[in-house]
Amino acid sequence: MSIITLTTDFGLDNWFVGTMKGVIKSINPDAEVVDITHAVPPHSIPEAAFILQNSYSYFPPGTIHTVVVDPGVGSTRNAIVVKSPRYYFVGPDNGVLSYAIDSEGIEVIVKIENEKYHLTPTSKTFHGRDVFAPVSAYLSVGVEPEEFGPPLKEIIRLTPSLPRKISEREIVGHILCVDTFGNLITDVTTALMDELLKRSKVRRLRILIRDREIVRMCPTYSQGNENELIALIGSSGHLEISINQGRAADVLGMSAGGKFILKVL
Amino acid sequence: MSIITLTTDFGLDNWFVGTMKGVIKSINPDAEVVDITHAVPPHSIPEAAFILQNSYSYFPPGTIHTVVVDPGVGSTRNAIVVKSPRYYFVGPDNGVLSYAIDSEGIEVIVKIENEKYHLTPTSKTFHGRDVFAPVSAYLSVGVEPEEFGPPLKEIIRLTPSLPRKISEREIVGHILCVDTFGNLITDVTTALMDELLKRSKVRRLRILIRDREIVRMCPTYSQGNENELIALIGSSGHLEISINQGRAADVLGMSAGGKFILKVL
Amino acid sequence: MSIITLTTDFGLDNWFVGTMKGVIKSINPDAEVVDITHAVPPHSIPEAAFILQNSYSYFPPGTIHTVVVDPGVGSTRNAIVVKSPRYYFVGPDNGVLSYAIDSEGIEVIVKIENEKYHLTPTSKTFHGRDVFAPVSAYLSVGVEPEEFGPPLKEIIRLTPSLPRKISEREIVGHILCVDTFGNLITDVTTALMDELLKRSKVRRLRILIRDREIVRMCPTYSQGNENELIALIGSSGHLEISINQGRAADVLGMSAGGKFILKVL
Repeated sequence: MSIITLTTDFGLDNWFVGTMKGVIKSINPDAEVVDITHAVPPHSIPEAAFILQNSYSYFPPGTIHTVVVDPGVGSTRNAIVVKSPRYYFVGPDNGVLSYAIDSEGIEVIVKIENEKYHLTPTSKTFHGRDVFAPVSAYLSVGVEPEEFGPPLKEIIRLTPSLPRKISEREIVGHILCVDTFGNLITDVTTALMDELLKRSKVRRLRILIRDREIVRMCPTYSQGNENELIALIGSSGHLEISINQGRAADVLGMSAGGKFILKVL
Repeated sequence: MSIITLTTDFGLDNWFVGTMKGVIKSINPDAEVVDITHAVPPHSIPEAAFILQNSYSYFPPGTIHTVVVDPGVGSTRNAIVVKSPRYYFVGPDNGVLSYAIDSEGIEVIVKIENEKYHLTPTSKTFHGRDVFAPVSAYLSVGVEPEEFGPPLKEIIRLTPSLPRKISEREIVGHILCVDTFGNLITDVTTALMDELLKRSKVRRLRILIRDREIVRMCPTYSQGNENELIALIGSSGHLEISINQGRAADVLGMSAGGKFILKVL
Repeated sequence: MSIITLTTDFGLDNWFVGTMKGVIKSINPDAEVVDITHAVPPHSIPEAAFILQNSYSYFPPGTIHTVVVDPGVGSTRNAIVVKSPRYYFVGPDNGVLSYAIDSEGIEVIVKIENEKYHLTPTSKTFHGRDVFAPVSAYLSVGVEPEEFGPPLKEIIRLTPSLPRKISEREIVGHILCVDTFGNLITDVTTALMDELLKRSKVRRLRILIRDREIVRMCPTYSQGNENELIALIGSSGHLEISINQGRAADVLGMSAGGKFILKVL
């Protein structure tokens, strides 16, 4: 078995993703391609990095995670293969792999250069098809990372979104993304919540977002009352702002990048 | 071979579905996951139930049908495995499985409780990943339903949408859903149509919908004239209201839940 | 291994595609279904033909390419299987397969008629499920094309969009489609570009589109300046009009069918 996951901003209304799968199956008929998503907002490197971070570790060891969100395709940006203790990562070296790799650790980084493993002629505008798909497929049949090009010392890292501390009990948090249900996923992690709540004798919080105040943490979405804005720890280990069967993002008019204040009492 | 189908309201613009597939492949590398749809309108249990009803029986015996439309996730609602003569069904016990199960019959119902078969730690907000994916995967490697928890006597059933009889030859029907092409799929079944038409000497019908009248049944979409509203029996065995290469839903301004009158002459 | 690709206008928000896959797996559990796209604009035969043309050749020999964009479903239009030297093509005989087949060559054309290989009862409105899915699956287990019905001499061909020549150095080109990134993909091929540029001593071009002028060809998207309209040769071998990390289609208000003038200086 060899699983290759794909995360791209290519959309599903064209031939791009299907073509990548054709290239992969032509090189390794036994490869199994699993889509993470192809609806990363166009060119949105941090969103893609966050999506990979939230999903990669649920796959079996040996999985090859390939991400193609690549506004610099064909330019001087590097294309890389990274081997970690459990996984392989393939993509442009623009930070898109960095959150996952920072969690997972690095054994080897190589710069993809060896044209023997590219589709030829190699376009300058679709490396998903001509470089990343074939490299992923050759990795899946056992080609060693070192075969694809020379080693690199480091990868490019994104600066992760982090809440700004105002005081011992007060921070400014940020919206990382909005999920399908309109939940606002924030950059406040479980660890930070625990730390803040330890400083609160009553273990209660208050969130100020737009002109609204949220006072209640619920363990589940369904414990929210109708139209009530609630806070909860979501499945990615981040604080979320939600409405039971409603869309907090729409009610608040908030999207990725938006800010809020979180205080513990 | 073991096929697991997925029907959810998770959307495809995030990591939710990909993560479920990672969990499944980690437990059973040979499982084959087939997507029915991930675009059930958020929290729409009847829509998901109808989608499953229209698709499940086309899969090979032994297929595991997993549905996660689960507004009550983490609350007191039960999670269940149902064994029918030909298939397994996995999901929350909120009615989402009930149309398919009522067609198919029940051999065993169990309440999912045994945490040995859950991902740990188990979130309270993403049972698709932490409960339903692993349970489906363990089923696919031969774990018996009884292993997952205690038996239940009954499942929760949805009340299906049914036309209301006005007279021997006249009913009020309802729109169940709008398909990709703008066709209105109704709750008038082939069987009911046959029954009604038997009472009509001329075997002709009239549909009153909004301020429009439909007088023609066509065997195929393409027999409709340009812009003509027609009625036909669709591939799910339900009466549809359509326009050849047009969008009846948009022309009529109708969506799920809308009503119309059907008379036979 | 037997790969079946699917290209349809069925959308992903319903049970249509999942059901086709269930039918295929019921006949050939070893078939691997790869989605090209299910978001062809409804009934848009030329768009589907172009998508297939851009993707089919990246798949391994023996792949069965099945396209269901079929406004005439259930009518007198033929359903066909075409064997080419490397691939099989399955779909309605409405031109949707013609671009790919014209590139690939024809060994055998048969009209699908033998009901032994259809799902029964066969609906008149969903041949994707009842005809094309089972025929594709039977092909994948080795049933010979001739088994499905009588030979045909010819397929129906679309007239491809071609630029109109105004002078030796000036043409009117057309937008074929808009991709996910808002790039305008045109009917000007690399071969035509080469021919035109040979007639230009300075090897420079000028594109007039709406009230804008484009003077620069770039090898990659990322070489465009902010908000600059550029021309480049895209990965499908066609001239594209683009904006680096922007959406040329939106800026210009252009979509499929739009025209522009291309001159070489």
